Amino acid sequence: MKINANYFNLKDNYLFATIAQKVRDFSAANPNKTLIRLGIGDVTLPLAPSVVSAIKSATDEMADKNTFKGYGPDGGYEFLREAIKNYYKSTKNVNIEMSEIFVSDGAKSDVGNVVDIFSRDVTALIPDPVYPVYLDTNIMDGRKIEFIDGNESNNFLPMPTENTKADIIYLCSPNNPSGASYSREQLKIWVDFAIANNAVILYDAAYEFFITDKNLPTSIFEIEGAKKCAIEFCSLSKTAGFTGTRCGYTVVPHELMLDNTSLNKLWSRRQSTKFNQVSYIIQKGAAAVFTEQGLIETRENVAYYLENARLISETLKDLEVWHTGGDNSPYIWLKCPNGQSSWEYFDYLLNEINVVGTPGAGFGKMGEGFFRLSAFGSREGVIEAMKRLKNLHR
Amino acid sequence: MKINANYFNLKDNYLFATIAQKVRDFSAANPNKTLIRLGIGDVTLPLAPSVVSAIKSATDEMADKNTFKGYGPDGGYEFLREAIKNYYKSTKNVNIEMSEIFVSDGAKSDVGNVVDIFSRDVTALIPDPVYPVYLDTNIMDGRKIEFIDGNESNNFLPMPTENTKADIIYLCSPNNPSGASYSREQLKIWVDFAIANNAVILYDAAYEFFITDKNLPTSIFEIEGAKKCAIEFCSLSKTAGFTGTRCGYTVVPHELMLDNTSLNKLWSRRQSTKFNQVSYIIQKGAAAVFTEQGLIETRENVAYYLENARLISETLKDLEVWHTGGDNSPYIWLKCPNGQSSWEYFDYLLNEINVVGTPGAGFGKMGEGFFRLSAFGSREGVIEAMKRLKNLHR
Repeated sequence: MKINANYFNLKDNYLFATIAQKVRDFSAANPNKTLIRLGIGDVTLPLAPSVVSAIKSATDEMADKNTFKGYGPDGGYEFLREAIKNYYKSTKNVNIEMSEIFVSDGAKSDVGNVVDIFSRDVTALIPDPVYPVYLDTNIMDGRKIEFIDGNESNNFLPMPTENTKADIIYLCSPNNPSGASYSREQLKIWVDFAIANNAVILYDAAYEFFITDKNLPTSIFEIEGAKKCAIEFCSLSKTAGFTGTRCGYTVVPHELMLDNTSLNKLWSRRQSTKFNQVSYIIQKGAAAVFTEQGLIETRENVAYYLENARLISETLKDLEVWHTGGDNSPYIWLKCPNGQSSWEYFDYLLNEINVVGTPGAGFGKMGEGFFRLSAFGSREGVIEAMKRLKNLHR
Repeated sequence: MKINANYFNLKDNYLFATIAQKVRDFSAANPNKTLIRLGIGDVTLPLAPSVVSAIKSATDEMADKNTFKGYGPDGGYEFLREAIKNYYKSTKNVNIEMSEIFVSDGAKSDVGNVVDIFSRDVTALIPDPVYPVYLDTNIMDGRKIEFIDGNESNNFLPMPTENTKADIIYLCSPNNPSGASYSREQLKIWVDFAIANNAVILYDAAYEFFITDKNLPTSIFEIEGAKKCAIEFCSLSKTAGFTGTRCGYTVVPHELMLDNTSLNKLWSRRQSTKFNQVSYIIQKGAAAVFTEQGLIETRENVAYYLENARLISETLKDLEVWHTGGDNSPYIWLKCPNGQSSWEYFDYLLNEINVVGTPGAGFGKMGEGFFRLSAFGSREGVIEAMKRLKNLHR
């Protein structure tokens, strides 16, 4: 009997554990200092009233024999899939069919599990820096991994070259951690590359709801040809504050074929075998996000975070600190001033102005020398942190 | 680029789709006949009042900025893991640690995903007939599969012999579909076999709550040595009517080692990478199941189903129809009278007495000639169906 030995190749990710330990140590030594946390990638505003009301009403249905729901349909309830289909049509002018939508408990599960349907004998192309799940799930499968580097000169939006080799391509836009978003023209290059190379783009659109610039695509399916080469992962975590409520969805177009096989059918088979759908109660809450009122309430929350992001970005511009993100994204990715390393800058901010961020080195080797600030905190915290930052760097 | 070619080896399971089609055709041709459905494996009674109240209260917390919850802890909230730990102690006299408990969205996900942590180059031993997920998930990984046959002479509780070869062993008790439960003595033989063969038992205890006979084990960890060789999968689906609410848990003991590696740590790494836990709201509802009042309410519902099962079993005894289950389980597994095949008997019951069951052949080749009835329907339906069955067979 043997375990999956690929697991031995995983590196433990101590990023957030190390941050937590340093913060604990600092607080213990400095009990009177007020910390401002701009490190978290988690939301802080409560669920929207429409969502709360829908969840309670669904709970009442589950309490009554006549309206009780047992196992739900594979792929998710029609009411939710129809709401998502209409959301794509009305906000992105993208036509998708309900049978192309798979409801799940969040983008992390789907982004993590989707590799099940691909051979282990192919190459995954992963941007650096990036969300660690792409890397770890491919290490678990023993797949060959190539990196494509983000850096200052490409604004952390790497593009393929003649020498780029890939079967599975991970793209995340707006990007975590860099906050940068691919343009339509850039995505078109990726789509053409994928089609020419018989590759599949795994497009992580978890932060699409933060895009307010009409010139930026919020779905890869806005790009011609994408339905032949891409799977899109979406989440209500950041859209509607569902990080603790758990619902997302994945779009697998019927046109997407590989080895004469429909990836939609493969993913459907994978999910119906290894997953039993999301709670009816939560699916009802998720559907409420896509109602007219739900979208108004949800956009208000996102506007609050975006204003935080704008305030951070404005401050960095004043200070002439190079950065990406700050608009169309909850993240700001800055170049550590004075040539400091990611962790040096972390310690510097913590000790000097009691602000907690995230060292960019934690997201890949290309993140070294960079630093992530998050807009998910409170307005007061952001304003105070920026005041302290200005004083520090002037 | 290649897909996971193992998927080509999966057989489409048309069991429930075929049943649904036959029922539709029958109803269309016989609009005045009243069908009684004893085929379903889904619950019908509503959520218990304690659960409903806990879900609503948690929803209120999510609506308030001061009590809102974002990402929950890996493995599940402490309040739920502590409730489960106490449930094991008080009802099974089994000591487990909170860090051995992994909350999930249901046993199907965990039973399906657990194969990720094992090498693909080992042998899975799967009982026949059985829940199809064990088979399909190993086919998806290209793992070698051996079957161990259930039949009339072993009461559909197969036991290992000198020639049995296995690395991964699936056991389901009380069994789906046969309703039969292993005794402590039988499980001890399996545990000893697993330890002697360096194998791991994947113990599906999804129906443990239906066991009322104090002589039958409700957890494999009641058996000495099991913590060295077994993982246990539990579900609130049948326990507390959570088929549409979605919550389960898996116990991976710290003592369980393979290749000098803790399977608890491997599973933890798998889950923290590919899963983001269950909704806080649902975890609160799940914890309510394990309160004193929650257990009273939940046991009332299960007692209702068990009385249905008893009525079915009594009728079959009167008719001298060989069967397993009917007590300590919601399923009754009967030998089709008069040598009929599973599907012949399905058609016979549908056409003659308008009762819908599940052909045993759908659960594996050893299920041919057998038939599953479920106790999850209404009392009135069961009584009427049994009246019709008596008239048919006399």
